[in-house]
Amino acid sequence: MGLVVQKYGGSSVADAEGIKRVARRIVDTKKAGHEVVVVVSAMGDTTDELIELAEQVTPIPSGREFDMLLTAGERISMALLAMAIRTLGFDAQSFTGSQAGVITDSTHNKARIIDVTPGRIRAALDEGNIAIVAGFQGVSQVSKDITTLGRGGSDTTAVALAAALGAEVCEIYTDVDGVFTADPRVVKKARKIDWIAFEDMLELASSGSKVLLDRCVEYARRYNIPIHVRSSFSGLPGTIVSGTNPNKKPEGGEMEQAIISGVAHDTSEAKVTVVGVPDKPGEAARIFRAIADAEVNIDMVVQNVSAASTGLTDISFTLPTNEGQKALDALNRVKEGIGFESLRFDDAIGKISLVGAGMRSNPGVTATFFEALSEAGVNIELISTSEIRISVVTRAEDVPEAVRAVHTAFGLDSDTDEAVVYGGTGR
Amino acid sequence: MGLVVQKYGGSSVADAEGIKRVARRIVDTKKAGHEVVVVVSAMGDTTDELIELAEQVTPIPSGREFDMLLTAGERISMALLAMAIRTLGFDAQSFTGSQAGVITDSTHNKARIIDVTPGRIRAALDEGNIAIVAGFQGVSQVSKDITTLGRGGSDTTAVALAAALGAEVCEIYTDVDGVFTADPRVVKKARKIDWIAFEDMLELASSGSKVLLDRCVEYARRYNIPIHVRSSFSGLPGTIVSGTNPNKKPEGGEMEQAIISGVAHDTSEAKVTVVGVPDKPGEAARIFRAIADAEVNIDMVVQNVSAASTGLTDISFTLPTNEGQKALDALNRVKEGIGFESLRFDDAIGKISLVGAGMRSNPGVTATFFEALSEAGVNIELISTSEIRISVVTRAEDVPEAVRAVHTAFGLDSDTDEAVVYGGTGR
Repeated sequence: MGLVVQKYGGSSVADAEGIKRVARRIVDTKKAGHEVVVVVSAMGDTTDELIELAEQVTPIPSGREFDMLLTAGERISMALLAMAIRTLGFDAQSFTGSQAGVITDSTHNKARIIDVTPGRIRAALDEGNIAIVAGFQGVSQVSKDITTLGRGGSDTTAVALAAALGAEVCEIYTDVDGVFTADPRVVKKARKIDWIAFEDMLELASSGSKVLLDRCVEYARRYNIPIHVRSSFSGLPGTIVSGTNPNKKPEGGEMEQAIISGVAHDTSEAKVTVVGVPDKPGEAARIFRAIADAEVNIDMVVQNVSAASTGLTDISFTLPTNEGQKALDALNRVKEGIGFESLRFDDAIGKISLVGAGMRSNPGVTATFFEALSEAGVNIELISTSEIRISVVTRAEDVPEAVRAVHTAFGLDSDTDEAVVYGGTGR
Repeated sequence: MGLVVQKYGGSSVADAEGIKRVARRIVDTKKAGHEVVVVVSAMGDTTDELIELAEQVTPIPSGREFDMLLTAGERISMALLAMAIRTLGFDAQSFTGSQAGVITDSTHNKARIIDVTPGRIRAALDEGNIAIVAGFQGVSQVSKDITTLGRGGSDTTAVALAAALGAEVCEIYTDVDGVFTADPRVVKKARKIDWIAFEDMLELASSGSKVLLDRCVEYARRYNIPIHVRSSFSGLPGTIVSGTNPNKKPEGGEMEQAIISGVAHDTSEAKVTVVGVPDKPGEAARIFRAIADAEVNIDMVVQNVSAASTGLTDISFTLPTNEGQKALDALNRVKEGIGFESLRFDDAIGKISLVGAGMRSNPGVTATFFEALSEAGVNIELISTSEIRISVVTRAEDVPEAVRAVHTAFGLDSDTDEAVVYGGTGR
């Protein structure tokens, strides 16, 4: 019967009917005896429409004014949602990010939360209100200007408020039933995950799973706020993301097994290969300094073994496709200094990642992974691993087949009743 | 070279092109050496669209949430306008009503301004910025909630900021060239007024002229802020509304003449007649107490002479048509106590008003007025006069002809080169 923070995305409040449906769900939570704080995004395509208006007015909008513009979107949805709740006979008040105490730095368009002072929210709850808060926005600490939090900002608002208010759970409502073992559009037999650890969710998020962004998961992990990802349409239980599985205690023999969470994929990246780099110390550093100076974020980095006969090596990395040109320009500017031969750019690639705890200490996982790809006839171009993740780059057109093959090989397909632990006792 | 406050209405910023055109005009004012504060309304039909959304969600929106919703409109227009100005190479910052220091009472949807503390605006100007302020909105003094100022709110914001900042003029930009001697859609020969006194403008505004609302004129009169009403499309000089005519000194012989400002009309009202009221003290008071308790604003009130034979009289009054039902309900509730015979409701009426200084002491004005109506074949149903205004109620369908007849009779038609003073020396 504690405090619950609920977040509803733009697709859940796309029109008046959606707003009324969400209002009923919120009221049901209140009726169940909870205090309820709701974080809401802008309706449907509102934000895109506002961005289009800005583009009609100016080629380079001022960051401060762009934030002022975009925050109009949540203002509309939150006021309508509060009205809809009051129509159902419950008290509700809406609050801007600033009124809710979401304090940020001054980086317009992608501000970071530096403090949350939810005094007005707490007071509204004490008076029996349901509090509706604009997601995605805050107020800068020094200049008191309106800021927006950038991608995934509304989810982060919800988690941050949940942490500041000591909520028992942060429910993220979306248009899918939860986090799946793979993208259900690619893998028909993908299974909804009932529970996943923060760390695994972080890896899935940074490997292409779009249900939650890594930023929000990282915040929840730091403050140990359980996230419940669920559908605003179906009403079914979704996926719990938390530090420890609330429904299971580890049993004997399980502790050291790898526990596969899921398969993620991402076709939004491109691959850059720097061909014929002199194989001597410092060359790689000069390449990545040039990339960093151009403010390009890179993902995987692989250096091939040097061909002994030439003394030259190739360095490949992946990056968001739309940052490709910037990276190539930066590298071409330092070509003479470094002395590499040429650059190759390839945006027809895809990345497949397997995420699960205990992976590195279970060499069988890697073997099974590569066997599955091989049997599916998928060629591997790059490999990168972390403690709980293994990623490969393939041709983009091979991605769906590769994801399905890996999903099946690790027993994740839903015709088995439960999640299957690799090499293990079943769980 | 002082400070200028400019206000642009929704039709001036209806789309991206409009916003860019307004931005150029603002920059021109800045280039001329002025400090510029701009008050802007929501774009075109934005407010109507938001109201429609609210109606889809709830039959009776909460006042607080309705204000939160509506204020999204100015947020969009002001941010876009600031972006457009910056694209022209000038510094601009946008401010919400709250940020601009527009402090109001807590009456949502029609809040009154109780203080203006424009510290952030002054600071932005000192740094060389053009300040863009959201019209129509403020923040309540006690609860710190977002409020809206109701009809004419953006004009009032502009005048209030002009007063608080000591502006030399408040320019109200609209889609017409200024204040006219009559509605140009009705009277083809209506003439733009170069200058009009606050008092006359107040009477015109409360008699149906829609260019400025009486509320904004009253604020300007109290703080003696000259208003310049002009077109954002033509760039021509418009109408100055101020305490004294800046271009004219009174000449001998003019002081005592009536100076006709214009003819206003209004077809948005209805007439209620309370038939068969016992003609004894206190009956009228009971009728209007019942109306006041129902929070209905009434305009003209006329009591007919009692018919000696019956001891009964009729009382008529006019009110906004959409408040008619409320008034009838209130009167029916007290019918037994007062003992009147019946109620009549008539929404096919119109009001024509002649406004000008010195009218009451120039009986020829009234005579000419009624002669003009008579010659046009217009029947008069009610008459009401003030120091500088005479109003009559007629059939609604007679209004255009009545307005034209009066306009011509007082020599206001524009084929004369200058405004003509009734019975006077020309001016």
